[in-house]
Amino acid sequence: MLEDLKEKVCKANLEMVNKNVVIYTWGNVSEIDRKSGLVVIKPSGVDYSTMKPEDLVVVELATGKTVEGKYKPSSDTPTHLELYRSFKEIGGICHTHSTNAVAFAQAGKSIIALGTTHADDFLGNILCTRDLTEEEVNNNYELNTGKVIRETINNANYRIMDCPGILVKNHGPFTWGVDANKAVYNSVVMEKVAEMALKTILLNPENNMPDYILNKHFQRKHGKNAYYGQNK
Amino acid sequence: MLEDLKEKVCKANLEMVNKNVVIYTWGNVSEIDRKSGLVVIKPSGVDYSTMKPEDLVVVELATGKTVEGKYKPSSDTPTHLELYRSFKEIGGICHTHSTNAVAFAQAGKSIIALGTTHADDFLGNILCTRDLTEEEVNNNYELNTGKVIRETINNANYRIMDCPGILVKNHGPFTWGVDANKAVYNSVVMEKVAEMALKTILLNPENNMPDYILNKHFQRKHGKNAYYGQNK
Amino acid sequence: MLEDLKEKVCKANLEMVNKNVVIYTWGNVSEIDRKSGLVVIKPSGVDYSTMKPEDLVVVELATGKTVEGKYKPSSDTPTHLELYRSFKEIGGICHTHSTNAVAFAQAGKSIIALGTTHADDFLGNILCTRDLTEEEVNNNYELNTGKVIRETINNANYRIMDCPGILVKNHGPFTWGVDANKAVYNSVVMEKVAEMALKTILLNPENNMPDYILNKHFQRKHGKNAYYGQNK
Amino acid sequence: MLEDLKEKVCKANLEMVNKNVVIYTWGNVSEIDRKSGLVVIKPSGVDYSTMKPEDLVVVELATGKTVEGKYKPSSDTPTHLELYRSFKEIGGICHTHSTNAVAFAQAGKSIIALGTTHADDFLGNILCTRDLTEEEVNNNYELNTGKVIRETINNANYRIMDCPGILVKNHGPFTWGVDANKAVYNSVVMEKVAEMALKTILLNPENNMPDYILNKHFQRKHGKNAYYGQNK
Repeated sequence: MLEDLKEKVCKANLEMVNKNVVIYTWGNVSEIDRKSGLVVIKPSGVDYSTMKPEDLVVVELATGKTVEGKYKPSSDTPTHLELYRSFKEIGGICHTHSTNAVAFAQAGKSIIALGTTHADDFLGNILCTRDLTEEEVNNNYELNTGKVIRETINNANYRIMDCPGILVKNHGPFTWGVDANKAVYNSVVMEKVAEMALKTILLNPENNMPDYILNKHFQRKHGKNAYYGQNK
Repeated sequence: MLEDLKEKVCKANLEMVNKNVVIYTWGNVSEIDRKSGLVVIKPSGVDYSTMKPEDLVVVELATGKTVEGKYKPSSDTPTHLELYRSFKEIGGICHTHSTNAVAFAQAGKSIIALGTTHADDFLGNILCTRDLTEEEVNNNYELNTGKVIRETINNANYRIMDCPGILVKNHGPFTWGVDANKAVYNSVVMEKVAEMALKTILLNPENNMPDYILNKHFQRKHGKNAYYGQNK
Repeated sequence: MLEDLKEKVCKANLEMVNKNVVIYTWGNVSEIDRKSGLVVIKPSGVDYSTMKPEDLVVVELATGKTVEGKYKPSSDTPTHLELYRSFKEIGGICHTHSTNAVAFAQAGKSIIALGTTHADDFLGNILCTRDLTEEEVNNNYELNTGKVIRETINNANYRIMDCPGILVKNHGPFTWGVDANKAVYNSVVMEKVAEMALKTILLNPENNMPDYILNKHFQRKHGKNAYYGQNK
Repeated sequence: MLEDLKEKVCKANLEMVNKNVVIYTWGNVSEIDRKSGLVVIKPSGVDYSTMKPEDLVVVELATGKTVEGKYKPSSDTPTHLELYRSFKEIGGICHTHSTNAVAFAQAGKSIIALGTTHADDFLGNILCTRDLTEEEVNNNYELNTGKVIRETINNANYRIMDCPGILVKNHGPFTWGVDANKAVYNSVVMEKVAEMALKTILLNPENNMPDYILNKHFQRKHGKNAYYGQNK
């Protein structure tokens, strides 16, 4: 079932390796088929060098139950599902341990929007969640990771697709998009933007970007009157 | 039309990928044919992995109108054109979001000339422009980006080819040269020089290079009595 | 003798090159055959590009005497042997001069556990040993390196396989695992975690991770009720 | 003439590219044939991607006159020759603009010996020269670069082969060895050691390595009773 989607999600997982945002079996990408309420996700702890489309796992959005697949799904599956359930606009999710984004997550700091590279794809700061409590970690940790992401987004009161990624405190980045490919793209961009932000802070701890530049760059690429790229 | 130039500019765009100063569809290179007043430039948002010479776009210097090409030109085209119109010596232009140069642009700091690697190709500090105003961003943003570059160069009162690159505040580097290849070369050098400068500043925030070393290195490579390289 | 093990240890040595944790002839990997009390280790100063399984050296655990092999074993062999003798759980050992881990060793600082990337494989801080004394360096230096590692672990009173690596002051990392492959894996992870920690410290010198996150991540991958990866 | 040496020096130049210590036409390697008093050196400004052994230039040690070769020799040739004339032990010389070593040169700081990676090949700090005077830069600049290197070494009063490299202030590293290959090796090691030192300083500005560790590591690899590597 969902053979095309499995192939797509498999490729999206391998793209993380090509773009140097994961090593070994780290990271995971999924995409949802909203019609059937099924999610295709990377198997847990399987090596990218040998991973094939048929190794991907199909799970139910509502229950997390495996519907098809010889492997266990990624241990982060409950985080993915919670995000798909909370935000209907999300079509694909990507989680990595990319170095610079993780550094911000470990520092407990949001990635401030400091330039147009950031603004081109993230309309505002990439937020860092609060710490999970001991209770949240010890019971349904991965589900609670999804909940704290939702809480952070809801508190900030922004539209989910305007800033398609977040940092989980002491952990690392989760990104999303209309599909798995866009989610991976956003992880790669976030890693690049995080490296730029870290270096900017080393050069000048006080800095910022006017909101009108932030808006201009995001909207010229993603707004109603976007003029970046080709007409579709 | 301009088939040779399209092939050259296409290769120059791909060279940015080879030299790791762009990812995805970021960045753009152009070259002008001064005789015909036509500029060949990268199409907007087209993937480098599939880009062919015939995908390049030919635009008029004076009007920006597309003369040939199935794609829309780079959204940064008005910036390129403004630079070609302002400085007759410029033959090619390159724009990237390379990490270390962007860090300086985001920090709002010029890349100070600290060593001979810098001096070999940039005769003085690589300047960072002022912020664009809200008005400048909201109306003809890309044209105004070109104008603020011109303003910065004119205020500093140096010869355009002596320091073939600049940082646009909160955005990133633009470089130029006698042709597209030299413009890309200068982007790669600027990125390297930016990384060196950042690391130098971390080691020693107070530092500088005597002007006579700056001049010596630039002139031995680019001056009237240059002796670096082979006679042509 | 031990032809399969030599092939395995040879590959594990080459994996250090593939994963960019060594250059030239730096670094060394070994694995012990506990039944025979023999250790297979990299020859000293032999180039990875030409190294073959038959170049590996077989030495006696108890005496360090070469039992088979046309080359001298790694000059760090006495360190490996001391660790195998001190900790029966260790099956493989890896030593590199990877850049970020060495930076911590040179700074005389432990790599503090700041995130889940660290916690996934190291249950606590990666400790840095004390300085070796002049006496310890001038007599049986490599043996004493093993002894100071043992001393550091014993003083910290943790289970050897819970934190499978250490930094030798002013020198660099040693890691271990159930076999040579796992030891190399732990070196690669330590290097990545060291880079993340360095960057985290630059962003926020005050930071930490709650112990319950540390425990959760380590145990979900390595504990009795581990659920990361596939059942074996 | 000296065909074998030209092939060797050509390969040594290309090895700088392979090891990422140069880009474009930057850097140069030479080797001397002491019997004939002739030096084989890279041509100036020739691309590594097309460079062949017959492109190398043969110059006289005493006069710097080109004896054979269709190209002009590297503009840094007078620096090489001054070093060959000053120190009879030197057989090969390498000059790069590698990023981290240049950062120290631009900061005007020596690379302090902080760990065994450094000690394995450099017995003490890698010194940074004083500024050249305006007079020294404007007249016979490259020759004077060689002279200030000699002055720095003589002032420090160490044996030239014990610390086979130096930083020229605001410029970059020069390294040497018994031949061209060893000189390139020392450039690669210096770059790695510089990166480690920079990161160490960021983690802990106060640090050092006991002299007895410095001596131990250098001597176990290069001393009379060296035991690193294989007997020759």
